[in-house]
Amino acid sequence: MQFKFRLGTKAYFGADCLKNNKEEIAAAGARCMIVTGRSSGKASGALDDVVSVLDELSIDYYIFDRVENNPSLDNVKEGGRAAREFSADFIIGIGGGSPLDASKAIAVLAVNDMNPVELFKNSFPVEPLPILAIPTTAGTGSEVTPYSILTRPDVETKMSFGNDQTFPKIAFLDAKYTTSMNRDITVNTAVDALSHAVEGYLTKRSTPLSDTMALEAISVFGSCIRNLVDNDFYMDMREKLLYASMLAGMVISQTGTSIVHGMGYPLTYFKDVPHGKANGLLMTEYLRFNYDNQTEKINNILNALKIRDMDEFEKIMDKLIVNDLILSEDEYVKFSRQSEKHKSVNYNIKPVTYDDILNIYKKSLSK
Amino acid sequence: MQFKFRLGTKAYFGADCLKNNKEEIAAAGARCMIVTGRSSGKASGALDDVVSVLDELSIDYYIFDRVENNPSLDNVKEGGRAAREFSADFIIGIGGGSPLDASKAIAVLAVNDMNPVELFKNSFPVEPLPILAIPTTAGTGSEVTPYSILTRPDVETKMSFGNDQTFPKIAFLDAKYTTSMNRDITVNTAVDALSHAVEGYLTKRSTPLSDTMALEAISVFGSCIRNLVDNDFYMDMREKLLYASMLAGMVISQTGTSIVHGMGYPLTYFKDVPHGKANGLLMTEYLRFNYDNQTEKINNILNALKIRDMDEFEKIMDKLIVNDLILSEDEYVKFSRQSEKHKSVNYNIKPVTYDDILNIYKKSLSK
Repeated sequence: MQFKFRLGTKAYFGADCLKNNKEEIAAAGARCMIVTGRSSGKASGALDDVVSVLDELSIDYYIFDRVENNPSLDNVKEGGRAAREFSADFIIGIGGGSPLDASKAIAVLAVNDMNPVELFKNSFPVEPLPILAIPTTAGTGSEVTPYSILTRPDVETKMSFGNDQTFPKIAFLDAKYTTSMNRDITVNTAVDALSHAVEGYLTKRSTPLSDTMALEAISVFGSCIRNLVDNDFYMDMREKLLYASMLAGMVISQTGTSIVHGMGYPLTYFKDVPHGKANGLLMTEYLRFNYDNQTEKINNILNALKIRDMDEFEKIMDKLIVNDLILSEDEYVKFSRQSEKHKSVNYNIKPVTYDDILNIYKKSLSK
Repeated sequence: MQFKFRLGTKAYFGADCLKNNKEEIAAAGARCMIVTGRSSGKASGALDDVVSVLDELSIDYYIFDRVENNPSLDNVKEGGRAAREFSADFIIGIGGGSPLDASKAIAVLAVNDMNPVELFKNSFPVEPLPILAIPTTAGTGSEVTPYSILTRPDVETKMSFGNDQTFPKIAFLDAKYTTSMNRDITVNTAVDALSHAVEGYLTKRSTPLSDTMALEAISVFGSCIRNLVDNDFYMDMREKLLYASMLAGMVISQTGTSIVHGMGYPLTYFKDVPHGKANGLLMTEYLRFNYDNQTEKINNILNALKIRDMDEFEKIMDKLIVNDLILSEDEYVKFSRQSEKHKSVNYNIKPVTYDDILNIYKKSLSK
């Protein structure tokens, strides 16, 4: 047994956990930059709650609500500059994966005089600003991971950085902030969380403790799966999904992700497929590809989901995630070439070749 | 669902994890005080390994090897003074629960000018020195908890302190350091770990995530239980026990312990019963007392242990932990009066009265 286990984030989970733990915000500093997207902060109600707590505590704040979907290096550079100009002591990130991931880059850039592309070196001379994270989706898990995924036009893909310094210090997980998600975002992000747990469980870098948490996440997701299929989104289910996505985030903080994520990035970069949806499109064939090599673990996944076999899994995923992509042969080749070079290929226990990747894409996307 | 989850410790687990992660020690500072007991550091081989790594890294060190069993306030005061005089940047704690718990008190006292009794106020103006912890028993879990249990002659018991600042920053868990434990220490400390997982699972403060980890710890302990009964201590089992005790430590970092610990302290304070043994003596009747109230969860515990029922549990515990105590009626009364006032009584889901405590003591110790 050889493993490392680390969780840099203290998580508060439950209704009103933000208001009930104000002392954590009071302790974070006197000047706060709020980092969020154009709509999720407001629509979720989280931004209003944060502002009201900051006002009550007489903490000065500046709202940077210009985080793009799949934020670019330029976008986080702008945020870093804003945080520096405002002399922020700490960051509160509110949103789905994009604003939370952007918060981490901004927290680094606010206090380190570096070009954003240097973020990927993962070495920050000055300790990044502390981040408090409030998820408004139940999928990314970014509130409890060190990872920040940014879009790099220079290499035409998404790329991640993150180290022990970029864990949010505190996460406030309140399912009421996830109720403003529509059907597609709810399902896509939930499938993203499942994908984190499944990939973390099957990767070469899985550990005994992360496996325990992954199976719990998968099992909690499983208890919501029929409701997801039926578009039956009630509060208790939203809370379970938020719990599962937090667990899955804790898993990938140990293990990283695997080829589903690596292969999903080109679909997002070139075809604008939402991240969770991209993962969902690929997951069935990823599991089929690995089944002979990882039979016991994949059966454990199916058992935890209370799903009979891979055929039933496929049927359910096809109901959750509908494929409307048509790729040209050139695109299949281009995306496979790019995925083949992605580091996640090294973490799949069964060796993965270019042909394997092409096959997984084609089987996934040609139906 | 309402809970908090925090783990302030990064854990490295596995053979040679200390030598393989030297950069963590290099990053901790230039002056190290090693805190250990009179024998465990040396006998385990951990002290030699630490010294050799510190030498290699040219880190100055001072060895404070005067931690007592069940350390007193005077003992940690002495350690705090030594750390201050040496101008230590960080502490490496090596040992079972006593040296690791003492490390936390010493880390606080080294930089805070306070009387040791003020430790229990849990408020430290100056951030305690960073602690790196190396367990040489598989039981305490102290390497991943914020808790420090100290002996207080003024109130005739053991008492704990700890907050988010007193988590060891890093734990190095290498089962080879636990092989020098004799049969009794191996079994007593293993039962302590089981007790952490069981109490954490059943307490009012249990959380969904700590429950997941508790059941995993109990199940791993269960896979070792026949070997423990047969005194069949091989390396793989020692590694599993170290893993289970780490998990159980992570559990009580969320939940605290319960009345087994509260009732065990008088047995240790007044009758010199080793801590794990005290817990083991009381656990069966604690479970029987709670069975009607916590039937499902206690059945889950038995299932995870692969034990049929409470009668079989009792038989196994009686083989592991042999009762050689004879208490007078006065002692029963005195210990029950003291336990009744222990905070852990409030955390048992089923209400606990003085008579309940007296009954648990008598049933546990009169056979």
